[in-house]
Amino acid sequence: MSSYTAGIIVIGDEILSGRTQDSNSNFIAKNLIKEGIKLEEVVVIKDEKKTIIDKVVNYSNKYSYVFTTGGIGPTHDDITSESISEAFNLEYLTHKEAFKILDKYYAKGDFNESRQRMAKMPIGSELILNPMTAAPGFKIKNVYVLPGVPEIMQIMFLELIKRIKKGKPKLVKTINTDLYESKIAIHLKKIQEKYNDSSIGSYPYFNLSAKTGGVNIVVSSWNMSSLQPVVDDIINMINLNGGKSSIV
Amino acid sequence: MSSYTAGIIVIGDEILSGRTQDSNSNFIAKNLIKEGIKLEEVVVIKDEKKTIIDKVVNYSNKYSYVFTTGGIGPTHDDITSESISEAFNLEYLTHKEAFKILDKYYAKGDFNESRQRMAKMPIGSELILNPMTAAPGFKIKNVYVLPGVPEIMQIMFLELIKRIKKGKPKLVKTINTDLYESKIAIHLKKIQEKYNDSSIGSYPYFNLSAKTGGVNIVVSSWNMSSLQPVVDDIINMINLNGGKSSIV
Repeated sequence: MSSYTAGIIVIGDEILSGRTQDSNSNFIAKNLIKEGIKLEEVVVIKDEKKTIIDKVVNYSNKYSYVFTTGGIGPTHDDITSESISEAFNLEYLTHKEAFKILDKYYAKGDFNESRQRMAKMPIGSELILNPMTAAPGFKIKNVYVLPGVPEIMQIMFLELIKRIKKGKPKLVKTINTDLYESKIAIHLKKIQEKYNDSSIGSYPYFNLSAKTGGVNIVVSSWNMSSLQPVVDDIINMINLNGGKSSIV
Repeated sequence: MSSYTAGIIVIGDEILSGRTQDSNSNFIAKNLIKEGIKLEEVVVIKDEKKTIIDKVVNYSNKYSYVFTTGGIGPTHDDITSESISEAFNLEYLTHKEAFKILDKYYAKGDFNESRQRMAKMPIGSELILNPMTAAPGFKIKNVYVLPGVPEIMQIMFLELIKRIKKGKPKLVKTINTDLYESKIAIHLKKIQEKYNDSSIGSYPYFNLSAKTGGVNIVVSSWNMSSLQPVVDDIINMINLNGGKSSIV
């Protein structure tokens, strides 16, 4: 088990209405596992102060790291920063360096009241710089506050992840087979029981028009030094049951 | 406000590891809003009994409808059905009709122990039929239990949604403009304050290589009989600020 855990809070009515497909949590998830941080939960919540406060307090207590996306722009529906200030009972103030960065970025006269809101955050926040459109995110306690626009969020995330404490990456191997899930289920269960330091996931897929299908078997472990014994047992089992197998 | 609310519980380690991008919640979200059901929250959780139980109990108490996806296949990591039985303190039993359907679907001798597990569910469940691969989902109390494979989940969802009680669909209009968010933020806020029965969302986008961008302004309401006054005010505001606008 990695000693570092994480939760992601996706903030935005546009995700809950189905208007936007969230891709930020998948991007963060993929990177966390590589960095040895165990993502425990993702939640998508609406742009509502009380909901944001409750969830941030809850996740901040439960996990080593919390990542939020969305709601830090200049409009009235961007309420993440002030909600997080309230969550931690911290003053919601203009961050001097953030103000300077934004003031420099915009043409003279364009740094208006709405844009100045983007420099406000909980007192004591550390900036997460935004090399694309200037408006920074911030870190307060164990919460990393990021924008919702994927291109900008990604570049900021890849920068911040370099500087946080991580565990040993999770080992992962995927074995593909043409056998159906139900053919191998009972055998896989036994292999899972034999190697209880690993986790074996079984992900079927179907190509319904071609009437083909198969399973991707994902073996992973936070603790084992090698997955090879588990992988060998699974491949043997597939062979014994007349299937084809390959590492993907 | 719609009088019907919903929560979605996405069950699966493969989502939290980033291996799979969840698309089921987006599909369900889009359909719920059309049907007048307000999606309040989406959560992605791991394949762990206690976690599933806690979340199902919590969502079932909070929302009119709960939809779960994933974890109802034949393998050892498919623990949704037994977890939901425990969540409601209901016996986890073979559903006779489900057993019959599966027995008929598989070739003689192929309906093995693992596959028979797919007929087990909380006592008193109503089946949600699966026209593609036979293994049914089920409804127990206000919880609808669906598979994780998107093609199958979608067809089952579209069938079940026909038979549940719904509200008046949410009215939604989207206005696009080439003005930047911060240019219109202060005006949008005033329009939002004027029409507090509607909700105005502002979603910027950037094409960084082309150095262009703009905003999609989404106006929506569960109560108003028409969004036209809000839309008119926004279009006037955009014109006054020298921008282009179009309904998208």
